[in-house]
Amino acid sequence: MTYGYQNLGSGLYQFHVGTTSHTEMIDMTEQIQKIVSDSGVLEGTCLVYIPHTTAAVTINENADENVQVDFMKEINKIVPWEDNYQHAEGNVAAHLKASMMGFSETLIIHGGSLVLGTWQGIYFLEYDGARRRTVYVKISG
Amino acid sequence: MTYGYQNLGSGLYQFHVGTTSHTEMIDMTEQIQKIVSDSGVLEGTCLVYIPHTTAAVTINENADENVQVDFMKEINKIVPWEDNYQHAEGNVAAHLKASMMGFSETLIIHGGSLVLGTWQGIYFLEYDGARRRTVYVKISG
Amino acid sequence: MTYGYQNLGSGLYQFHVGTTSHTEMIDMTEQIQKIVSDSGVLEGTCLVYIPHTTAAVTINENADENVQVDFMKEINKIVPWEDNYQHAEGNVAAHLKASMMGFSETLIIHGGSLVLGTWQGIYFLEYDGARRRTVYVKISG
Repeated sequence: MTYGYQNLGSGLYQFHVGTTSHTEMIDMTEQIQKIVSDSGVLEGTCLVYIPHTTAAVTINENADENVQVDFMKEINKIVPWEDNYQHAEGNVAAHLKASMMGFSETLIIHGGSLVLGTWQGIYFLEYDGARRRTVYVKISG
Repeated sequence: MTYGYQNLGSGLYQFHVGTTSHTEMIDMTEQIQKIVSDSGVLEGTCLVYIPHTTAAVTINENADENVQVDFMKEINKIVPWEDNYQHAEGNVAAHLKASMMGFSETLIIHGGSLVLGTWQGIYFLEYDGARRRTVYVKISG
Repeated sequence: MTYGYQNLGSGLYQFHVGTTSHTEMIDMTEQIQKIVSDSGVLEGTCLVYIPHTTAAVTINENADENVQVDFMKEINKIVPWEDNYQHAEGNVAAHLKASMMGFSETLIIHGGSLVLGTWQGIYFLEYDGARRRTVYVKISG
């Protein structure tokens, strides 16, 4: 699924993701590969950066969707939503899960394409949705 | 809070952080932005690298300080300090927490500034202090 | 331990790791440093990328091997192998642990060498072995 994107110049691009539930994994692989292709860069790196504190990026299996269901269920169990947190907004678990997964992922571009393993997809991780989110992609090459 | 830094040449900088307790989060955003500004690089990337095995770097909310308190309390609960570890030094939990958070963070530089979300700050994570720690910043552009 | 590697051109290299048990940590520091040296790059960055979904990369202590034993035992406890997962293949825990540790690590090259802390080694993390695995190294400078 691609959403369209903005070219901000100097190899920097942004696009938006609309999440539809509180916890959600969205496959961004096609969208990011399209930006890489359009950039014309054949050899280099592609940085995916999430400018939020309760959403993250990771790599995961793109074959069986049950992996995604189990993945999110288990991390929600490891970091419980309620645990006498002091933060008034009540979303501390989302902050911690995002930090555990990470806000950036650096990928390799070779021959104009992302170097990904057979089963690898690039996923947006929503931990405090539904919201409209931004993703930055920085191509260097 | 800025501490002063050393310019090691070729876009590489280092600065030191003095942690004052066993577990601590320290906001490095201002220090890193100052290095980016002084480097004169307008478009590129900024790699923050922690050369330790019991300290890490992450992004977190810079508004409510309770997020930081809850964040550290919860990760300490998930990875208990005592758990019949074999490592004589007794700080295995610190090693694991550092790996879960990560030793590097790559940020985007656009128009001479770090591209950060509204609520994002860059944090040094101390898991086995108090100690004098080093942070490397590598600017590419 | 070095395994030999292939130079794919444009600063991209790959090598293989043969894991011998289900859960395993393998020190890749020497192999990666050899690639950096052979590349001839004196100043830049070195991206280590794992093209799998049940293996990862991290930094860890290279002194006491008990750290590695405790490290893997504790993460296996935090993310249990059996937990009524829906994914038929039964390796969801491996997917989650790999995402928690991360699929890439960006290192600094200075004076032709990796900038690592005194106790830092670069480790391949196997969570669903034994298998033959691939590691990519991208040198930019």
